[in-house]
Amino acid sequence: MKGRPVVLLLSGGVDSTTTGAILREAGYALYALSFDYGQRHKIELRSCIESAKLLKVAQHKTVHIDLRAFGGSALTDNIGVPKGHDFRKDIPVTYVPARNTLFLSFALGWAEVLGACDIAIGVTAVDYSGYPDCRPEFIEAFEKLANLGTKAGIEGDRFNVHTPLINMTKVEILREGLRLGVDYGKTHSCYDPGSNGEPCCECDSCLIRARAFLELGMPDPVLTAST
Amino acid sequence: MKGRPVVLLLSGGVDSTTTGAILREAGYALYALSFDYGQRHKIELRSCIESAKLLKVAQHKTVHIDLRAFGGSALTDNIGVPKGHDFRKDIPVTYVPARNTLFLSFALGWAEVLGACDIAIGVTAVDYSGYPDCRPEFIEAFEKLANLGTKAGIEGDRFNVHTPLINMTKVEILREGLRLGVDYGKTHSCYDPGSNGEPCCECDSCLIRARAFLELGMPDPVLTAST
Repeated sequence: MKGRPVVLLLSGGVDSTTTGAILREAGYALYALSFDYGQRHKIELRSCIESAKLLKVAQHKTVHIDLRAFGGSALTDNIGVPKGHDFRKDIPVTYVPARNTLFLSFALGWAEVLGACDIAIGVTAVDYSGYPDCRPEFIEAFEKLANLGTKAGIEGDRFNVHTPLINMTKVEILREGLRLGVDYGKTHSCYDPGSNGEPCCECDSCLIRARAFLELGMPDPVLTAST
Repeated sequence: MKGRPVVLLLSGGVDSTTTGAILREAGYALYALSFDYGQRHKIELRSCIESAKLLKVAQHKTVHIDLRAFGGSALTDNIGVPKGHDFRKDIPVTYVPARNTLFLSFALGWAEVLGACDIAIGVTAVDYSGYPDCRPEFIEAFEKLANLGTKAGIEGDRFNVHTPLINMTKVEILREGLRLGVDYGKTHSCYDPGSNGEPCCECDSCLIRARAFLELGMPDPVLTAST
């Protein structure tokens, strides 16, 4: 795979997979980076592998990190995932402290070693109000940090953090992904899946996804696949 | 241990230990955070434990991270540590990509869970020219990121990254630490120690330390201890 290298943060969900498809279409060679951070659903890690295959990445790494050491979130602790939470109002309990800061920092480390100046992350408008580390001003602050804190940055290269979805709704994201041929049957979004990886259909992430497919007037292929 | 909590990045060396002693004197309760990042000298991890005891920290955590996955530095790869490198000129090969960005990100995650708004890191003037992620403008950029990317930050608290050593020379740091009763015989600085943890006396870190003790007109207690 040729092209300018970009480190893509890949969770195997709709957003990161679509981000990868967009960057790939733009001519980038994808270096996908996933995390095993003690999330309760190892199904997410399987989805990352599927998604990396789908995107024909140049390389895929999974880094183990130890977020459980600190606790503090439903995604890593043994506290319940809320159902039907109004994700537009508060910071949800599924928020993991400093998660995107950490993920971007690891991406930056790999980018430096690769000699890459591009990082991509699938943060979206839908997450704005809920997660502080999904906002454009946060991304800009990280870019600035990257340029001040790295060899490449101080030697005159410019790090770019690509967020092609940041102003898109979930419907717009799906529409763009479908145009690019993304098979959403292979992506995973649920915060609280069953033992075989089937989505709960009740958590924030499932609800956002379900509404979007409904609005598109098509069935969610992940549901068709699991029935 | 009472006092406002601060997450202290602790490597067990002169700088981080002195930073801890300064913050402790200022009335903070220390939450020390160390990393096992595949560094070749596990002696550093033993020093962290010694140093945490010395500082009477409220809690000490060691997080395993996987910097070796990316490679790119003499401290984690199997390439030689340079001897007598002029640390004032170039970015040394011992530079680990995005290391301080990563370490500060983990500190931020723990701070959020603790409800703390203070982080401390022992970056120093000596490291300015060699390591881009030791400069004041980098630290300021991280503070800004922390305030934009966290619950606490957007809810009105202000994260502070304390760098009490940033304008101090190594001699000034040692003088301050000695005043505060730090036992430098328990601290570890060498990038390339022998199998029993004895310093090589030839790497950048050993040379900086040796010059400083020489200037102070006293023997380095870590050398006295190991002979």
